[in-house]
Amino acid sequence: MKHLTDPMDLSMEELEDLFKLAKNIINNQEDYRSVCSGKILATLFYEPSTRTRFSFEAAMQRLGGQVIGFSEPGSSSVTKGESIPDTIRTVGSYADLIVMRHPKEGAPKYASYHSLVPIVNAGDGGHQHPTQTLTDLLTIKEIKGEISNLTIGLCGDLKFGRTVHSLIKAISRYENIKVILISPKELQIPEYIKKEILIKNNIPFLEVETLEEVIDSLDVLYMTRVQKERFFNEADYIRLKDSYILDNEKLKLAKSDLSILHPLPRVNEISPEVDNDPRACYFKQVKYGMFIRMALIARLLEVA
Amino acid sequence: MKHLTDPMDLSMEELEDLFKLAKNIINNQEDYRSVCSGKILATLFYEPSTRTRFSFEAAMQRLGGQVIGFSEPGSSSVTKGESIPDTIRTVGSYADLIVMRHPKEGAPKYASYHSLVPIVNAGDGGHQHPTQTLTDLLTIKEIKGEISNLTIGLCGDLKFGRTVHSLIKAISRYENIKVILISPKELQIPEYIKKEILIKNNIPFLEVETLEEVIDSLDVLYMTRVQKERFFNEADYIRLKDSYILDNEKLKLAKSDLSILHPLPRVNEISPEVDNDPRACYFKQVKYGMFIRMALIARLLEVA
Amino acid sequence: MKHLTDPMDLSMEELEDLFKLAKNIINNQEDYRSVCSGKILATLFYEPSTRTRFSFEAAMQRLGGQVIGFSEPGSSSVTKGESIPDTIRTVGSYADLIVMRHPKEGAPKYASYHSLVPIVNAGDGGHQHPTQTLTDLLTIKEIKGEISNLTIGLCGDLKFGRTVHSLIKAISRYENIKVILISPKELQIPEYIKKEILIKNNIPFLEVETLEEVIDSLDVLYMTRVQKERFFNEADYIRLKDSYILDNEKLKLAKSDLSILHPLPRVNEISPEVDNDPRACYFKQVKYGMFIRMALIARLLEVA
Repeated sequence: MKHLTDPMDLSMEELEDLFKLAKNIINNQEDYRSVCSGKILATLFYEPSTRTRFSFEAAMQRLGGQVIGFSEPGSSSVTKGESIPDTIRTVGSYADLIVMRHPKEGAPKYASYHSLVPIVNAGDGGHQHPTQTLTDLLTIKEIKGEISNLTIGLCGDLKFGRTVHSLIKAISRYENIKVILISPKELQIPEYIKKEILIKNNIPFLEVETLEEVIDSLDVLYMTRVQKERFFNEADYIRLKDSYILDNEKLKLAKSDLSILHPLPRVNEISPEVDNDPRACYFKQVKYGMFIRMALIARLLEVA
Repeated sequence: MKHLTDPMDLSMEELEDLFKLAKNIINNQEDYRSVCSGKILATLFYEPSTRTRFSFEAAMQRLGGQVIGFSEPGSSSVTKGESIPDTIRTVGSYADLIVMRHPKEGAPKYASYHSLVPIVNAGDGGHQHPTQTLTDLLTIKEIKGEISNLTIGLCGDLKFGRTVHSLIKAISRYENIKVILISPKELQIPEYIKKEILIKNNIPFLEVETLEEVIDSLDVLYMTRVQKERFFNEADYIRLKDSYILDNEKLKLAKSDLSILHPLPRVNEISPEVDNDPRACYFKQVKYGMFIRMALIARLLEVA
Repeated sequence: MKHLTDPMDLSMEELEDLFKLAKNIINNQEDYRSVCSGKILATLFYEPSTRTRFSFEAAMQRLGGQVIGFSEPGSSSVTKGESIPDTIRTVGSYADLIVMRHPKEGAPKYASYHSLVPIVNAGDGGHQHPTQTLTDLLTIKEIKGEISNLTIGLCGDLKFGRTVHSLIKAISRYENIKVILISPKELQIPEYIKKEILIKNNIPFLEVETLEEVIDSLDVLYMTRVQKERFFNEADYIRLKDSYILDNEKLKLAKSDLSILHPLPRVNEISPEVDNDPRACYFKQVKYGMFIRMALIARLLEVA
């Protein structure tokens, strides 16, 4: 592993290794406090994403490293008129690792072809966001003990949700996974995901329109936002919108060991009252996001 | 003490303890150089304030800690559509301490209800700016030896000046303080400050319209800006504006041990010629601002 | 040396000392990894320049120091209504060294008059950019062994190019230098550079309009951009533009030990195919830029 631009680039062995390292970091934080001492991470955010940037920066700092970067293209002259290869070679002269967020699909991959230092894709348009997928997998693994033998519900906008597509691809590599897809008709999962991922990998799956009808069968519920603008007509929106809002009422139907995940930020799709339920795992997920990034940085810099 | 959102939240004992720690840091900077090693401060500036941000960041770094943050809402996606509690819980997963500047009154207090890590208010609209008040108090204490037994003049816009209101509340808790309020009629101190703070605490005070008539009696002169737009008419502005500009001519009337403070930035209310007068303390005040923030961070993180 | 605002402020001895220190840092990076521990650099960028800012920040971090700063005036309140002396004295209370980029000529020099900490000019309008000149000189010295006894070609916009003017002044202090000026007539070097620098210092020079006619005689070729807008008429532009684009075809005529430099960013004046030629030194130059800044910071802070 030299770069990380697509979560599927990682073999199952590399994934397991990262999860193991993340767990070791969680349990022995002091041991890793200066493994990146003298190293520099560059965060090149061609579009703003504060939480992802913070997560990477805190991860690097908690390993003893330092950070340079820009948080939006406006404040950066490198974004005007310079080719990505030139920017990458320049920044790679200052930094030991580059984390790149870019509105154009494939920009981080293109950057990796010209880079002497490792490149991590921190989101490229609607395409990939591999460290979010790693975060989701680590959270499931740490809370459930394993990623296998689970019924996983994915709820909300399954059509445009980059995070959901990547997660389905990732979990389809594990044993005995069942997938339940909960969304309005307009926002159902794309056909190619069903054919090329679920069916091809023999993953049993079910498509439903409401959370209530399936919540009792779930081990993991992955919530995402449903944007009003994505509905075809107001009537459908009014009829369905409450079906995609998780609240204590709906949770009464769920298993006592359900784990609720969300990539955040949320708008109103999880009621704040749920935050106090022990099944709510989305803030733990934030923390796991930082730890998996620590593991990834440590591996890419070959310091752990 | 877990958070600092209002300077009056601190008891006199907590204040004294902070001043003592600040003094110890000033005298033994080497001893504190790595007490925050491995800790992260997040600076969430929902409105820009470069000098306050720099002061906190330098304070954290001089204690050996590191910093993540944003300096204005534009470059931050967390400011769009996410609730403050969600942002705070997310950022609190990465950082050990959060410093928050927000245009809305009460935002830092509201944040503190939902935070697992300490919150420091770095200014919330026209409301509070507690570390400025701590800075003012430490400066007076260090230069005068004590905050008691002083005649303190406050000059300029006393009506809208947040800094001045907080300072009056703070000094009204000390012994034998006299307050002289110097401002145009339009910009006099609000009635509630007089009734609920000065009169209630038996603080003798005097309201005057010009600096010249009282400058000879002052031990401390706290200058603030008078904005032209705040005057009711041009004639009053022209008649009075020079009364609120401190220059060497007016300083001839003052005591030889007067201490001149200013929260900065200044526009023209202190003539640059005054900067070389030994009574000018406003740049020392900037330095004390960093030291009191070092003390505050160290206490909140329980590392000193 | 207390500040660096103009590259010509440095004596030949100070230059040699900096080059020697830079070389020592390159060869013994571990020895310098914490010489700036506990020190803070402030980067005040009143206009954005990401690569220059990154270079300084990485330099400081690779010496073990930390950084505060702003990357553009918009996010900074210090840029509104506060005088440069006040800003400098405030920031100098937090930081040990200030790097300043400003659109106005002379702003860093003016700042240095009021500063208690060293000021480094990181570019002031079309005027000076001394660390670029130091970078160019170190690159020549490290690659050629010495800055003397060389034929140096400067190609592109020689009329408005700040970098080129500074470099000519700098190399005119060395022994046995020949200068070849390659530019369209409209963008020839200003008369005062010819009279006051080249002729006065007895530097042989030649002015030509095309790269092809002289490239075989060069030891160093310093490329800069030619902007279409700078031409007087379209016909001239079309006739000449290819003469200022370096490609493998033109390089066939050049010496085998030619060194190609460019201050970057480039647009199209060096074809990407040239990047793989061993004579291309502009990415090495980026790295030397970081090392000379490390040397400069270490000297100004008196830690090496």
